[in-house]
Amino acid sequence: MQIAILLYDRFTALDAVGPYETLSRLPGAETVFVAAEAGPVRNDGGSLTLVAERAFDDVVRPDIVVVPGAPPEAVEPRLVDAPLLNWLRTVDVMSTWTTSVCTGSLLLGAAGLLKGRRATSHWLALDGLRGFGATPTARRVVMDHKYVTAAGVSAGIDMGLTLLGEIAGERHAQSVQLLMEYDPRPPYDAGSPDTAPADLVAHFRTNGVPRD
Amino acid sequence: MQIAILLYDRFTALDAVGPYETLSRLPGAETVFVAAEAGPVRNDGGSLTLVAERAFDDVVRPDIVVVPGAPPEAVEPRLVDAPLLNWLRTVDVMSTWTTSVCTGSLLLGAAGLLKGRRATSHWLALDGLRGFGATPTARRVVMDHKYVTAAGVSAGIDMGLTLLGEIAGERHAQSVQLLMEYDPRPPYDAGSPDTAPADLVAHFRTNGVPRD
Repeated sequence: MQIAILLYDRFTALDAVGPYETLSRLPGAETVFVAAEAGPVRNDGGSLTLVAERAFDDVVRPDIVVVPGAPPEAVEPRLVDAPLLNWLRTVDVMSTWTTSVCTGSLLLGAAGLLKGRRATSHWLALDGLRGFGATPTARRVVMDHKYVTAAGVSAGIDMGLTLLGEIAGERHAQSVQLLMEYDPRPPYDAGSPDTAPADLVAHFRTNGVPRD
Repeated sequence: MQIAILLYDRFTALDAVGPYETLSRLPGAETVFVAAEAGPVRNDGGSLTLVAERAFDDVVRPDIVVVPGAPPEAVEPRLVDAPLLNWLRTVDVMSTWTTSVCTGSLLLGAAGLLKGRRATSHWLALDGLRGFGATPTARRVVMDHKYVTAAGVSAGIDMGLTLLGEIAGERHAQSVQLLMEYDPRPPYDAGSPDTAPADLVAHFRTNGVPRD
């Protein structure tokens, strides 16, 4: 089984590494980071560099595709990035699971893969899914047939564990969860627009995500 | 303010990226990945490569030091790695916060920095802290003066948000939590030895962490 995690300029690091740390523990799986060209790829903050070992041409039939998100100004140019969208369409033909984290679902949408599907995204980007014919669904992880989308950034960990359970069974997913000690204790209850201080939510709805 | 995140061969990726995704959002902070030598560094699974932009000699006075963990067979050689331990001792002299995730606390211990301190680690490694004169403390995040240690792997996110709140205030930490949508919903309640199926816990206590 091959897991392909997409990288592109100014991706969000945890969007990629959350699913990596869970899904790469699938027994017998090979995990590859892939970008338009092989080589170093910088994240949104500009201070983290992950290496894509493979180019699009070298990854033609992954079983699982993972598409991380990025901030608005970084994801927007990708919505018309023909090589990237073509690669997504190509690998989706034979994939068993096509997944995304955060605004990665907008890329799946732009590739035409979410028409008529329920899907989620970062809470600030959720409505944008409508433009691609998807039904925005405000849940942490949304599974519609083989399309598994996660909410913002950290939701990729929950998505990875959920998918691990689907593929390898509950016991294996629980083992991975125990070994990564995923027993979250956020110091604040501010992780969702439903629980965060209302003025903070309103501020970001009005002003968008601050640029680094 | 400079944040230095240590990398070394076979580190655990999420141990580094969890604190990165939170702490690097400190206003005005510069975040640097640092290793014995600058260049690519492979993780424990072998399929993820992060780039250390700086060598030990180039990072002499960070304000915050973050030490990720690694599986037992990868962390053990580091407990006697003189250049690494010397670098930790050097930067700790002037650091405002010296932090770790998972078995990273064993490295702080081996550098002699946790004597008489309360500290945590991965649940399977917690007792190992005693050998370094620390008091093992089974909590998700332990703050003893400037030493902030986190439990296994994913606990680095909670540590990062906790420290962000200490440094930049609750509002800023809540903003970061909201933007990374850290509203965790693990599909299983198996993230701690207190909640995971007892036979799984016993299995790993007996057999240790499986090698990749």
